[in-house]
Amino acid sequence: MPHTPQSLSPDTRVDTERFSATLARSAEIGVGREGGLSRLALTDADREMRDVFVSWCREAGLSVTIDRVGNIFARRQGQDNDLPPVVMGSHLDTQANGGRFDGIVGVLGALEVVRRLNDIGHITRRPIEIVNWTNEEGGRFSPPMTASGCFAGAYPVDWVHERPSDDGATFGGELARIGYLGEAPVGERPLDAYFELHIEQGPILDSERIQIGVVTHAYTSHGFLVSFNGETAHTGPWPMERRKNALVAAARFLVAVDNIGWDFAGTGGKGTASRLVAWPNKAGILSDWAEAVCDVRHEDPAAAAVMAERVIRAVSEAAARAGCTAEIRDRWDWGGAIFDADLVSVVRETARMLGYSHRDLPSQAGHDAYFLARVCPTTMIFTPCRGGVTHNNNEFAGQEDLEPGLNVLLHSTVARADR
Amino acid sequence: MPHTPQSLSPDTRVDTERFSATLARSAEIGVGREGGLSRLALTDADREMRDVFVSWCREAGLSVTIDRVGNIFARRQGQDNDLPPVVMGSHLDTQANGGRFDGIVGVLGALEVVRRLNDIGHITRRPIEIVNWTNEEGGRFSPPMTASGCFAGAYPVDWVHERPSDDGATFGGELARIGYLGEAPVGERPLDAYFELHIEQGPILDSERIQIGVVTHAYTSHGFLVSFNGETAHTGPWPMERRKNALVAAARFLVAVDNIGWDFAGTGGKGTASRLVAWPNKAGILSDWAEAVCDVRHEDPAAAAVMAERVIRAVSEAAARAGCTAEIRDRWDWGGAIFDADLVSVVRETARMLGYSHRDLPSQAGHDAYFLARVCPTTMIFTPCRGGVTHNNNEFAGQEDLEPGLNVLLHSTVARADR
Repeated sequence: MPHTPQSLSPDTRVDTERFSATLARSAEIGVGREGGLSRLALTDADREMRDVFVSWCREAGLSVTIDRVGNIFARRQGQDNDLPPVVMGSHLDTQANGGRFDGIVGVLGALEVVRRLNDIGHITRRPIEIVNWTNEEGGRFSPPMTASGCFAGAYPVDWVHERPSDDGATFGGELARIGYLGEAPVGERPLDAYFELHIEQGPILDSERIQIGVVTHAYTSHGFLVSFNGETAHTGPWPMERRKNALVAAARFLVAVDNIGWDFAGTGGKGTASRLVAWPNKAGILSDWAEAVCDVRHEDPAAAAVMAERVIRAVSEAAARAGCTAEIRDRWDWGGAIFDADLVSVVRETARMLGYSHRDLPSQAGHDAYFLARVCPTTMIFTPCRGGVTHNNNEFAGQEDLEPGLNVLLHSTVARADR
Repeated sequence: MPHTPQSLSPDTRVDTERFSATLARSAEIGVGREGGLSRLALTDADREMRDVFVSWCREAGLSVTIDRVGNIFARRQGQDNDLPPVVMGSHLDTQANGGRFDGIVGVLGALEVVRRLNDIGHITRRPIEIVNWTNEEGGRFSPPMTASGCFAGAYPVDWVHERPSDDGATFGGELARIGYLGEAPVGERPLDAYFELHIEQGPILDSERIQIGVVTHAYTSHGFLVSFNGETAHTGPWPMERRKNALVAAARFLVAVDNIGWDFAGTGGKGTASRLVAWPNKAGILSDWAEAVCDVRHEDPAAAAVMAERVIRAVSEAAARAGCTAEIRDRWDWGGAIFDADLVSVVRETARMLGYSHRDLPSQAGHDAYFLARVCPTTMIFTPCRGGVTHNNNEFAGQEDLEPGLNVLLHSTVARADR
């Protein structure tokens, strides 16, 4: 079929009232602390949100496919359906004390784009797909961005299925339990492009009162899952010299990671202690096992590499100081100059055309887009969020904060899909 | 009734074969790692052990009373039952990775003493009681020695009943569930004396090949339960300067406690990080709450007081360094020159009379005896245990290690009860 796209009027805008109502419905599912959500991946709340999302997609005439790691793809046919699709999306899961916007805006914003195209009867040349990636947050299963990583070939499907949760469940078991263990292969098909709309999760746009963040690159992030092994003994008589307290090893390690973050804070680096578990972890007894999760991030990949090297040294130093052994059991690395120059230009030009204030900036958080960038041209569009607060029930972005991003997503996606 | 005690022949000895069989039965209940026990207080395993113990006591002709915090008293009448009893005992609960001897030897050893007295028909002047104290270990409910502390008036009964476990249960609820929420008042009656037989839980007797430890005093121990409050935020974009990561505060605090232990290690001091929990404690998000349990111990009470002061300073320093607030939510203090000089002499003289090698030494672990010392003349008798290993499945004391202690318990108790 020849390429005969209709033109999309530059005046076309999303329906922000409809979008807000959609977002409000999402905010009812997996309610957490006041104003926030606690919709951890593959819980009953995640299932309920998925069910609602799928029903909305079907009402919008989309065909829904679930892959073997639970990623949901909702497809709108184009004029030439042999062409790879242009994909928009993000994730509907949240942290344990998450907000109503993180990830969710990217999925439900994509749905609003499709609904608007339906309203005006615009059929793009290439098909368009909306995607909800499973377990972006890593709030229940480690590592984060598990399922987009799997899509990009970073993690095997079986390995993903075996990931454990704290409550003794597995990723694969929970997928089956909530009815989202699909049959579609994971990845293994070409995508034309991937756009991810997201709140900034940082204070820059809000403080500078800029409407659109053109995301040019990503902080480089190195994450680690480290286990420490020691030996139980009595907390009283056992001499300090003979102790092998895995809890002390893990605590020393996480303090070192925090110190690394502070050492690089002057140039915007971060070091984060995010998780520590130990066993038996009880009064009266030394722990013989502990596990720690941490990451370091820097805009400069070389600096991030130095931070990561220091983390690795800290593993053995902390273990030795506590008489324990240690093992880096998992490692993940994201970011860098990963976004596609053409797509970044499309976003920047679209913002300009629509008259929105905009600036280039890096992404600091991890996003599914980082993995998608490995398999197709990818970029992100940031909207302001109040004070940059996120992963917190006080996360907030108003309709006026989100509308410019939704319209840039609409016009950028159609520009790409119609080319 | 006039005081007309029979004489107990100095040749009288416990039946070590019977005692070993009794101990072997205990080792079948709440089996943990190889060779060890995991018989946490008020679990089903604790109930099973209590049921067996109570049946043994009844078979030995003892009358059994349960108090409102689950302490089990088994009484053997004397010639003058208006006199306060001489009490022997310890605890049947263990740590999560506990041994077969810690505490258990003191309770089942007392039972063997009574059985031997039954064998030979010796009726002491004063009544004798065996006691099993609830939750000495603190392995499931904090603080340790809860129920002997309650008996000594340190903790109100209602407060004890409200203590929570990690699995959402309460001390009082679990007592009722396993059928050991008794009706007897807690304490509120005079005891003539309290003897606690215990493995040393340290290496001195074993390395010096000495049969009996005459426990003259106790390490002073200061324990703390500290909570830290911060704020959740994203581990990526959120600047180091604005972070309030409660996990970092708790980790810094526990490292400081470990450092305090090392600073005093040259004079035998210990500082122990025993527990850290945080929330959400997940990859990708800073924790807004954490709780830490620790203690410091020193033979010199003045040094222990210095260590405790340093712990208290470390609470606020660690919190401030991580942008958090902190609160010392509970504190417990044990030890010092608490044991009764007359009872200590009885033990020392009994060991001499029986021809056992012996030495004076302090107790370093916490024991129920520390609380009993507040309400009646108290002392302890230590036996060797291999390498001093304890709170570990490799804890071990052979029949030859335990026999001298059992006989010293027998003769010391009778000497006191017949006086």
